[in-house]
Amino acid sequence: MRAAIAGASGYAGGELLRLLLGHPDVEIGALTAASSAGTRLGAHQPHLPSLADRVIEQTTPQALAGHDVVFLALPHGQSAAVAAELGDGTLVVDCGADFRLASAEEWTAFYGGVHAGTWPYGLPELPGQREILRGARRIAVPGCYPTAATLALFPAFAAGLAEPDVVVVAASGTSGAGRAPKAHLLGSEVMGSVGAYGVGGVHRHTPEMEQNLSAVAGRPVRVSFTPTLAPMSRGILATCTAPAASGTTPAAVREAYEAAVKDEPFLHLLPEGVWPATAMTVGANTAVLQVALDQRAGRIVAVVAVDNLTKGTAGGAIQSANLALGLPEELGLPTNGVAP
Amino acid sequence: MRAAIAGASGYAGGELLRLLLGHPDVEIGALTAASSAGTRLGAHQPHLPSLADRVIEQTTPQALAGHDVVFLALPHGQSAAVAAELGDGTLVVDCGADFRLASAEEWTAFYGGVHAGTWPYGLPELPGQREILRGARRIAVPGCYPTAATLALFPAFAAGLAEPDVVVVAASGTSGAGRAPKAHLLGSEVMGSVGAYGVGGVHRHTPEMEQNLSAVAGRPVRVSFTPTLAPMSRGILATCTAPAASGTTPAAVREAYEAAVKDEPFLHLLPEGVWPATAMTVGANTAVLQVALDQRAGRIVAVVAVDNLTKGTAGGAIQSANLALGLPEELGLPTNGVAP
Amino acid sequence: MRAAIAGASGYAGGELLRLLLGHPDVEIGALTAASSAGTRLGAHQPHLPSLADRVIEQTTPQALAGHDVVFLALPHGQSAAVAAELGDGTLVVDCGADFRLASAEEWTAFYGGVHAGTWPYGLPELPGQREILRGARRIAVPGCYPTAATLALFPAFAAGLAEPDVVVVAASGTSGAGRAPKAHLLGSEVMGSVGAYGVGGVHRHTPEMEQNLSAVAGRPVRVSFTPTLAPMSRGILATCTAPAASGTTPAAVREAYEAAVKDEPFLHLLPEGVWPATAMTVGANTAVLQVALDQRAGRIVAVVAVDNLTKGTAGGAIQSANLALGLPEELGLPTNGVAP
Amino acid sequence: MRAAIAGASGYAGGELLRLLLGHPDVEIGALTAASSAGTRLGAHQPHLPSLADRVIEQTTPQALAGHDVVFLALPHGQSAAVAAELGDGTLVVDCGADFRLASAEEWTAFYGGVHAGTWPYGLPELPGQREILRGARRIAVPGCYPTAATLALFPAFAAGLAEPDVVVVAASGTSGAGRAPKAHLLGSEVMGSVGAYGVGGVHRHTPEMEQNLSAVAGRPVRVSFTPTLAPMSRGILATCTAPAASGTTPAAVREAYEAAVKDEPFLHLLPEGVWPATAMTVGANTAVLQVALDQRAGRIVAVVAVDNLTKGTAGGAIQSANLALGLPEELGLPTNGVAP
Repeated sequence: MRAAIAGASGYAGGELLRLLLGHPDVEIGALTAASSAGTRLGAHQPHLPSLADRVIEQTTPQALAGHDVVFLALPHGQSAAVAAELGDGTLVVDCGADFRLASAEEWTAFYGGVHAGTWPYGLPELPGQREILRGARRIAVPGCYPTAATLALFPAFAAGLAEPDVVVVAASGTSGAGRAPKAHLLGSEVMGSVGAYGVGGVHRHTPEMEQNLSAVAGRPVRVSFTPTLAPMSRGILATCTAPAASGTTPAAVREAYEAAVKDEPFLHLLPEGVWPATAMTVGANTAVLQVALDQRAGRIVAVVAVDNLTKGTAGGAIQSANLALGLPEELGLPTNGVAP
Repeated sequence: MRAAIAGASGYAGGELLRLLLGHPDVEIGALTAASSAGTRLGAHQPHLPSLADRVIEQTTPQALAGHDVVFLALPHGQSAAVAAELGDGTLVVDCGADFRLASAEEWTAFYGGVHAGTWPYGLPELPGQREILRGARRIAVPGCYPTAATLALFPAFAAGLAEPDVVVVAASGTSGAGRAPKAHLLGSEVMGSVGAYGVGGVHRHTPEMEQNLSAVAGRPVRVSFTPTLAPMSRGILATCTAPAASGTTPAAVREAYEAAVKDEPFLHLLPEGVWPATAMTVGANTAVLQVALDQRAGRIVAVVAVDNLTKGTAGGAIQSANLALGLPEELGLPTNGVAP
Repeated sequence: MRAAIAGASGYAGGELLRLLLGHPDVEIGALTAASSAGTRLGAHQPHLPSLADRVIEQTTPQALAGHDVVFLALPHGQSAAVAAELGDGTLVVDCGADFRLASAEEWTAFYGGVHAGTWPYGLPELPGQREILRGARRIAVPGCYPTAATLALFPAFAAGLAEPDVVVVAASGTSGAGRAPKAHLLGSEVMGSVGAYGVGGVHRHTPEMEQNLSAVAGRPVRVSFTPTLAPMSRGILATCTAPAASGTTPAAVREAYEAAVKDEPFLHLLPEGVWPATAMTVGANTAVLQVALDQRAGRIVAVVAVDNLTKGTAGGAIQSANLALGLPEELGLPTNGVAP
Repeated sequence: MRAAIAGASGYAGGELLRLLLGHPDVEIGALTAASSAGTRLGAHQPHLPSLADRVIEQTTPQALAGHDVVFLALPHGQSAAVAAELGDGTLVVDCGADFRLASAEEWTAFYGGVHAGTWPYGLPELPGQREILRGARRIAVPGCYPTAATLALFPAFAAGLAEPDVVVVAASGTSGAGRAPKAHLLGSEVMGSVGAYGVGGVHRHTPEMEQNLSAVAGRPVRVSFTPTLAPMSRGILATCTAPAASGTTPAAVREAYEAAVKDEPFLHLLPEGVWPATAMTVGANTAVLQVALDQRAGRIVAVVAVDNLTKGTAGGAIQSANLALGLPEELGLPTNGVAP
């Protein structure tokens, strides 16, 4: 399989390349970008010496043509036009937000402008979703925070143990904010500091979490979501709580989560009493989970750690692409991380 | 005034010393500790060259006698015995947990053992509390997380805008875990990683938050509290949410918070739309606040940043001590922090 | 005394303000800047709530007029024009590089363009320099790296113990690179990484180090200087080595350094065997020193830690300004740092 | 091939396991340790879910018997006894220091006690060393700092361009100091701080650097080595300078380094003017190099970045083991790192 990467000079693009370099069935084809077209990849991804001398091309239909799979890591709003030029025979995997939401109304409310459409949602762990992805030719890769929050809470909602008043507070590494230079993302600003942003129901990942959890719950789930920026490059730790349904026991909660992860290659439920940390997942496609029933407060508390660039973006993209291409789901994806 | 510090070689002790060195009305008397007795302070607090050659004494009643104020920064459970030996004329300020809770039952449930008693609670910003502290001779300094969560939500509860189903998720710097060497606190483990701990209603600061908010609300408030450890030395960022009372408007929320901070020297409400980060408070006794009404999810979301060692421990202790000693509340306490 | 700060929205400006807020004899006057003129200081220096509502003015002669002292924290090359408009009665303290070098030739080689001139060099610890600064009306604040390297090695050269083949390798926090957003200074890039830059004799601080050490040694000193960027916001750790003069003993080295720091309020020589770390100096105007004679390799190795923004810029500026204004040298300057 | 790892619960052991999990020709056999024997690997290496349930055995000859290769990641001084019990048919790769030095006198001077002997030195890039390693049955893995400094300077000495008065200043991540809990390695102490240690010719890696560079130079090379600890978990950045031999030109230096890296799979010389950072190498077995001739100071300055746990320990160990076992040298070793 030949793969092209549009957006090769950014963080998502770099992670796609790192993973695809280790994928036994994929050959790396065109590398494209916008402002960095014409430069060598080594100037942008110096951690990938294998590709240091590869020249980045301009993102055009011509450059992306002739590949089995095209990964798009483009700014929001640009994917539809690019995908339209690629034939139906090409698998197009969009790491952006354009095709994630089913509701055009929610799209417009949170992103502005016109909804481009809805593609199969690339989260194989969602009940029923794996089948939808097999053989798909268009895939919308989930947002990093929705990946985390959905994996944390879907077992509780699927088992009917949680009420739909969800609170998610998540800490993300700075790579989630991208590579464009902005003053508030300078090392001097972020080191030694945790700060909140996008508070009060305005973060764009909110409706995506609600969409996923509502589908699992079979009824509308509301999410109060607060993202925070933490002094680390990679990783999301999401603390996700929901009121426990009446009569829920600790044993029922544990059982629901054990059942949910049992056959999942990339979900890892920790032993009871051990809680996730993002360091457990750096560079891995694994989501590490733990859950407790707070009987005093009457809430289920589920915590998940993922690497926002791996399981949260590029690894999740390749996992879904493997399914779509008929390859083993785990191919080329590390289960184990880099620590300390 | 002469001040003694018991526990001078730890992080809270070091911060007490840093602040007292800049306090115009306090002279630093005895420095005591346990295992580091007999060594020089410079070996433990190399950032305080002014005191580098001072020898640390063993923590004994004799060493602590003859001071106007004694600050205790001791492991939990040791303060009662020390305080009993100090006369009623001495102001004793306990940075530990021994005297924070009013409920002996809660004490035993969360800390084990027998409740030592209840001292005036050193959070002057709590309605009515400033008067209690004036002239007090025993003060229980609040826990760092309860300081943060209480300051974040007391305006909402005082104004009757919040329902008592509170969710607090807080990130703390590692100094909150103290200076005793433990493998999970090694730099190699904590750098680049955010992790949860004490999840599910088991953290000892939970009943203290409930005690404070229930007092303000005038009815029982339940708190689901999840602490996380973030890769920074100092700082707490607490995201605190509660269901909005029926009919609550954004304007009412803003008004309640503006009223609550108006005359408070150490509460700083940010302009609307700007959210706290811990870097705004390093080394300062200031709590930086912001609040929003998430109308979609029906919750008030308040975020607060404090320096866990300053406003969260040593600064809060000195603020209350100033009141007890009849000094201006702000004396010797920096309003402004060190950044970047 | 009324002080104006030009460049109030940058890192050096912020540190000047933090320190001047605690200076008993200085009142803060005009705050000026270029692109952030018209905005409030709180938007740029959120750690300084005392000044949050102050409006930043455009940097003009009119705005800066009428102050006793004007601190310039401007991009290189802009100070001369501003200073020319301020009368000789005003103390002008330039935190930039324009007036540091005595050699016009070296200036042009390293900075390009025409040399603006030479002002009294604001490093009071240099032998004889304190007298020059008393009553001065123009001061050139040293560069942060030259401050560190000069303080580390001047005792050895002054005592004739070192040969002039100096190697300096220094790690700096990212605030030294300023606040303008650049991709390589993003938190994602700098966290978890130490990198070299400006290697091979090209860094502009090289001739300044040579100028200082040559003056002390009384003969030309050559410096091989390599700066590195470390994942911290503040601090410089400089490792400075020079061949030991023939017959140099460890005792002679220790003696020279003890003599050099004896009457210096901001030099702190650690006990033998204890080595500096930048955490010992955060927010303090102190330089922490240690030295050893490596008899195997025949070199003196001196290590110094300073806070690049305090002793390395703003604190050093105020220290020299105190001298120039006839105030006690230490006024308003913290000896003790913020740690951990 | 079956591999056993002694010291599986430490940082070097964890990195060996991470890499061996991706090695196509190696099956992981016994995992042994001392105090953590009897516990599950997941409690110590939570980033390796693939092995979470494997039980750690006590390090005994019986546990290590019957493997094709045994990797020892033990405290210094313990390897000789373990190796003596393993037959000559077993490849024993010692990640400790016991067998690195040829000189028994240097050993005793720097490590104390009796020299255990000398094994083939596992740095294939050293001229002639690759041949020595093919078919070896005992390998001494180089120290992390000597790996860095030797790779930085061997091209210059091999080409006769450098004089033997070397100065090395290196920054290391904290994982190099191991996993045993010590107060000065706490996150609170190391975050935001760079500090020196082992200064003045006393660090144990000094004679190892001298041994390597002297062998390449064909005459005694003296090294002034200063290690520093930087706030990152992984990585070494070593700045290595030596006086340039008379008549050395920039072109000659560049040529020497280009020639040295040409056929080396794990040496990557950056384009001129681009300097190494440790983030370029995280998790990779690659050493990233750059060099300049400082004509002003008359010194060659070479900078190298390596991951201390990968190329500096576990990756270097596997690279040499591949040679010894007759496998392709690069098997199972990532050339590309994880960034940002």
